[in-house]
Amino acid sequence: MPGHPSGSRKFLTFAADRPFALEGGITMHGVTMAYETWGRLDADGGNAVLLCHAWTGDSHATGPAEAGHPTPGWWEGMVGPGMAIDTERWYVVCVNVLGGCQGSTGPASPHPLDGKPYGSRFPVVTIRDMVRAQARLADHLGVARWHSVVGGSMGGMQVLEWAITFPHRVGSIVAIATCAQATAQQIAWGAIGRHAIKLDPKWRGGDYYDAADGDGPSEGLAVARMVAQVTFRSDNVFTDRFGRELADGATLGEGLDLWQRFEVERYLEYHGNKLVDRFDTNSYLIIGKAMDLHDVGRGRSGLKAAMARIAAPALVLGISSDVLYPNYQQRQIQQLIAAGGTSAEYVEIDSPHGHDAFLINLDQVGPPVAQFLDQVGKL
Amino acid sequence: MPGHPSGSRKFLTFAADRPFALEGGITMHGVTMAYETWGRLDADGGNAVLLCHAWTGDSHATGPAEAGHPTPGWWEGMVGPGMAIDTERWYVVCVNVLGGCQGSTGPASPHPLDGKPYGSRFPVVTIRDMVRAQARLADHLGVARWHSVVGGSMGGMQVLEWAITFPHRVGSIVAIATCAQATAQQIAWGAIGRHAIKLDPKWRGGDYYDAADGDGPSEGLAVARMVAQVTFRSDNVFTDRFGRELADGATLGEGLDLWQRFEVERYLEYHGNKLVDRFDTNSYLIIGKAMDLHDVGRGRSGLKAAMARIAAPALVLGISSDVLYPNYQQRQIQQLIAAGGTSAEYVEIDSPHGHDAFLINLDQVGPPVAQFLDQVGKL
Repeated sequence: MPGHPSGSRKFLTFAADRPFALEGGITMHGVTMAYETWGRLDADGGNAVLLCHAWTGDSHATGPAEAGHPTPGWWEGMVGPGMAIDTERWYVVCVNVLGGCQGSTGPASPHPLDGKPYGSRFPVVTIRDMVRAQARLADHLGVARWHSVVGGSMGGMQVLEWAITFPHRVGSIVAIATCAQATAQQIAWGAIGRHAIKLDPKWRGGDYYDAADGDGPSEGLAVARMVAQVTFRSDNVFTDRFGRELADGATLGEGLDLWQRFEVERYLEYHGNKLVDRFDTNSYLIIGKAMDLHDVGRGRSGLKAAMARIAAPALVLGISSDVLYPNYQQRQIQQLIAAGGTSAEYVEIDSPHGHDAFLINLDQVGPPVAQFLDQVGKL
Repeated sequence: MPGHPSGSRKFLTFAADRPFALEGGITMHGVTMAYETWGRLDADGGNAVLLCHAWTGDSHATGPAEAGHPTPGWWEGMVGPGMAIDTERWYVVCVNVLGGCQGSTGPASPHPLDGKPYGSRFPVVTIRDMVRAQARLADHLGVARWHSVVGGSMGGMQVLEWAITFPHRVGSIVAIATCAQATAQQIAWGAIGRHAIKLDPKWRGGDYYDAADGDGPSEGLAVARMVAQVTFRSDNVFTDRFGRELADGATLGEGLDLWQRFEVERYLEYHGNKLVDRFDTNSYLIIGKAMDLHDVGRGRSGLKAAMARIAAPALVLGISSDVLYPNYQQRQIQQLIAAGGTSAEYVEIDSPHGHDAFLINLDQVGPPVAQFLDQVGKL
């Protein structure tokens, strides 16, 4: 089916004799990683490209919605035969992160001790933990070294951690709309989402899976998502798209009500509820905390020293209208890598769409990524 | 006491034979307006300046914290003898808005029908309702025409409505960090705060005043305030002030916990809780909704036609780093007033502090305001 490569979803469970030690000090057992692959690994293993997903993404980078994948691929149009990330040329792998809820071990998974969901027992994980779990999967797949590791937003955090933790296993990196360390403002937005979820009595401290009424903290998660959704987009696009229209064709002449919705409120509620249908609240918390903890300099003598370890040529993309990961952060990444003597290029996506532009403006994201993947092997 | 003028807090209750009809169609009875004054009204009544407060402000524009005023004046240093708004020259008036909780009739006030708090019965009010209530107070004070009406943020919304609704009663206006109509993004932030409050089971649909446990929706209000607090400030200042420090002197080496706080989280919680101590949740909702409904063009043939009605010379201040009321909004106000043939000047406050700069950078806000108030009477 041209343009729609059929991915193959698989699971890897670390054998029980291979415990997985987290950065926070806790050791997990029986960790499962869900992943998908597209294309074929060359005999020399040199054509593997790892895609790293963002907060609420999963291993389904491309392909239609299907059983176990409630939504179409998050990078539909970017990955496939003849596309920017050409699956006829590259062996593309995408892994659901540790802590997630689409197949990889996360808070909704059974705890090996009693088979009941981890819930509040699920440990805090870091971006480094996610990356080290992916490295075990790479061993399993026979990928000694990625041609490139590619990702946006939280995916880009993983990209940087891959390049710093495993310099010998990373041939190049593409880091999009991401940062080398989460800022106070990014943490602030994350904290507000956490508080909103905690405020929902149905969250029950994280142990809601076996609630008698079967009801989870959907309202708290929806509010947390609403916060994120505003930061993912932009003032201008909200104005163009929603203006001051009321939802449901209402007009203000009919009287005023505290809960009468503007169209933008309807949009936010829609996206909040949509996430509730497909995502586990505890995964949202755990992954969000991992992003707040993201700091490539932690335990590595600081930001500059850590970034100087990157030996892989880098393409760094920023977005002109991104208010969540402002483009000074991507310029900083490019500068810190270049300062370490490694080739690094910065390209700016000129888009009004804000942070989400890396998922929207594929006409601008695709060409530099395709060119970089092609050329970096020839350097 | 030089530098600290003693304000005089007073109350005006509209007589029962003067009902107050709201824009939304509901008529209120026994409305009380709490206000403070500084300085003396000239014999010709020509030196009166009205200050309009923002979301969680009140009539206490200047002066120390005292009984009934849990915080020092919100414009301390800006208003007083010899200050930018010189109380030796101007008769300064500031009124707690309709719907507020510092003396003016609001959701916590007794409903005239049964003496119990309005709670969920309190009607939606608009910025125009706030302004028309202030006009009744102006009648009471003998102020036929304000020398100037001055305000920032929601105060600036009132400023514009004053100039449009009562052109013959407004000699000049100073509109700071405000907008002619709330944008979709501003509404979005407001809506998220509303949802956070609604999520708190202790909000009880707005009827929490007589709750058996005496406990109100403090957590919901705190989360709503946290959202606002981030939008009031700026990425750069958060980075400079908090960076990635942990609260309470903790370090990450001690293990990872989902609820371990970064310093910025502690700051947000502190401000959330501080508001809870001094502000009524329903007032927060009612006033927030009034801001979302703010649109000077409503029922007036649109924005341009409404703004063209402004006959008062205008000083409009914007803030370089304001992400909540970006300075394109103040430039628009200046342009629309000027397009109607009225004198309008735009001055930009160069500050890293974001929206709250109009309360912080008085060294930049004061001089243009003082000069404008002085010169506008001589035009």
